[in-house]
Amino acid sequence: MSISRAAVQELVAPVSEDMERVNEILRGQLAEESAAVRDMTDHVGRFHGKQLRGALVLLSGEATGNATDEHAAVAAIVEMIHLATLVHDDILDGAEVRRRVACVNERWDNQVAVLLGDFLYARAFALSTELSSRLCSSLLSETTRRLCVGEIEQSNHRYDFELEQSAYERISGAKTASLYAAGCELGARYPGGNEEVGAALAAFGWNLGLAFQIVDDCLDVVGSTDVVGKTLGQDVEDGKVTLPVLVTYERADARLRASIRDVYTSPDIDRRAERLREVCDLGPGVEFAMGRARTLVDEAKSQLAGLPETPARTSMESIAEFVLTRNW
Amino acid sequence: MSISRAAVQELVAPVSEDMERVNEILRGQLAEESAAVRDMTDHVGRFHGKQLRGALVLLSGEATGNATDEHAAVAAIVEMIHLATLVHDDILDGAEVRRRVACVNERWDNQVAVLLGDFLYARAFALSTELSSRLCSSLLSETTRRLCVGEIEQSNHRYDFELEQSAYERISGAKTASLYAAGCELGARYPGGNEEVGAALAAFGWNLGLAFQIVDDCLDVVGSTDVVGKTLGQDVEDGKVTLPVLVTYERADARLRASIRDVYTSPDIDRRAERLREVCDLGPGVEFAMGRARTLVDEAKSQLAGLPETPARTSMESIAEFVLTRNW
Repeated sequence: MSISRAAVQELVAPVSEDMERVNEILRGQLAEESAAVRDMTDHVGRFHGKQLRGALVLLSGEATGNATDEHAAVAAIVEMIHLATLVHDDILDGAEVRRRVACVNERWDNQVAVLLGDFLYARAFALSTELSSRLCSSLLSETTRRLCVGEIEQSNHRYDFELEQSAYERISGAKTASLYAAGCELGARYPGGNEEVGAALAAFGWNLGLAFQIVDDCLDVVGSTDVVGKTLGQDVEDGKVTLPVLVTYERADARLRASIRDVYTSPDIDRRAERLREVCDLGPGVEFAMGRARTLVDEAKSQLAGLPETPARTSMESIAEFVLTRNW
Repeated sequence: MSISRAAVQELVAPVSEDMERVNEILRGQLAEESAAVRDMTDHVGRFHGKQLRGALVLLSGEATGNATDEHAAVAAIVEMIHLATLVHDDILDGAEVRRRVACVNERWDNQVAVLLGDFLYARAFALSTELSSRLCSSLLSETTRRLCVGEIEQSNHRYDFELEQSAYERISGAKTASLYAAGCELGARYPGGNEEVGAALAAFGWNLGLAFQIVDDCLDVVGSTDVVGKTLGQDVEDGKVTLPVLVTYERADARLRASIRDVYTSPDIDRRAERLREVCDLGPGVEFAMGRARTLVDEAKSQLAGLPETPARTSMESIAEFVLTRNW
């Protein structure tokens, strides 16, 4: 087990037993009679990941004294939706297919990855319709819509160096923070009522999720592949102008701005990220972005102020802090 | 308006007013604050298509005396799920990207097409959670899962000339007939109860949908592009061995079988369909497949026998017949 995995397990200790139930539900949902489908779900089933979203559903339930027998299913549904978005994120564009053939999609082609993601969404929605309350179906289908809108807008703003920070945060929030917010809200409210506490926990999730995304964006431009363990520099390759780059660009003079734009559209796509680090000092932009993430984490933690001091609440505060220091 | 469009409108005449409400709901669902999203949904909104699935929800409601105020929303949800599958069907594989660059996905790249389909699914599920009964959410999320499994299995059986007819029908049924079946069942049962009539109407939809798919598969190998109005020969290009080809192959001698396999894997992909028609006489295979479609249509119609004679029932019988004679 890697260090980061062990660290995450310690962070979610108050709900570790329930997380086993979540994973049992997930295994059951991914089991499918069709051998062709099973072969694929077996594979994605191993993409355990950090499962922070699912754990936060349970922790929000514990921290607000609202845990129910159905919380594990809600957490599993949130994790399945997240898994579906991951599978669909791996769909390659025409241009990317040509340059990244042996990368993410080597096991199956695009079409099958699309179908597998659809299958995971459908499973998630089907499971949510079996729960006693409709709050989970309605909140998560609405969240999925928001999530797609965020991703579409992000795609639409590729190569947009004039993007305002507020627009960047709105889009990144929709793309990433909305599922954290919905998971925490469901943890605090499911099966219903409790709207005020739900709103506070949704705000916790939103701020935490947005901080998570900003840290992700910083790691993508200045992280080390060895440490982070995934291909970095992808945002630059894909033309995504994230907060650290937006700030660097905003503060640059006309000549440097032109160089940055040139790097983003350089035909030598594989070297774009490296060249970006060569043409400009990303340090101050990353520092600004990490400062913003710090503020968001503080804001997230302040939302828990009204809750009793429990191991679950402490765990949520630690997760928020961990988002800032993570290097994976 | 094309002749086929006028013909379809006449077929669905008993519910034409309600179909306007369905389209109003669809327009509302596709409207989205984000300009980037709206630009895309405007575009798919014009892909009206035949809207047979939606019309059959309404007709099943009328024919069984079960029409409610919510049937138009159910029909809109069924159409949105269908639209999502169409958008995702257009996602190209790596190999296809290279040879069909200017085809289906010329307006947006693969990634955005994935997100748009996801958006449509999410919208459909979100709308279904707003209905008074959960029958629609639960039946349609389960149907969406089946549909994905069918598509995945189909992809898994590419180039499989040993596929049994029963397996072909199971897969084509899951892929295409399941949504017709669910729509007709919902029309007859929504918001609940009425299970026996629901089962009969589901069987109507299943048989009709499977016949529809078989006719589609025949048109793909022997139709004329001018008449059908879409690119044909795609199944052969994609390695899909459909019923008319399976039968042709089964009846062929060893030499012809080898030729057929060669055509399917020929590097000159654009000419595969044409070459298939050159190396073998597809006539008897198509005739067999159309005979099977005829049987399915009769089976579909027999499911309506217990219903009172109404314009809606007559319309459903005519739609079933039309499936056999359509050339679009």
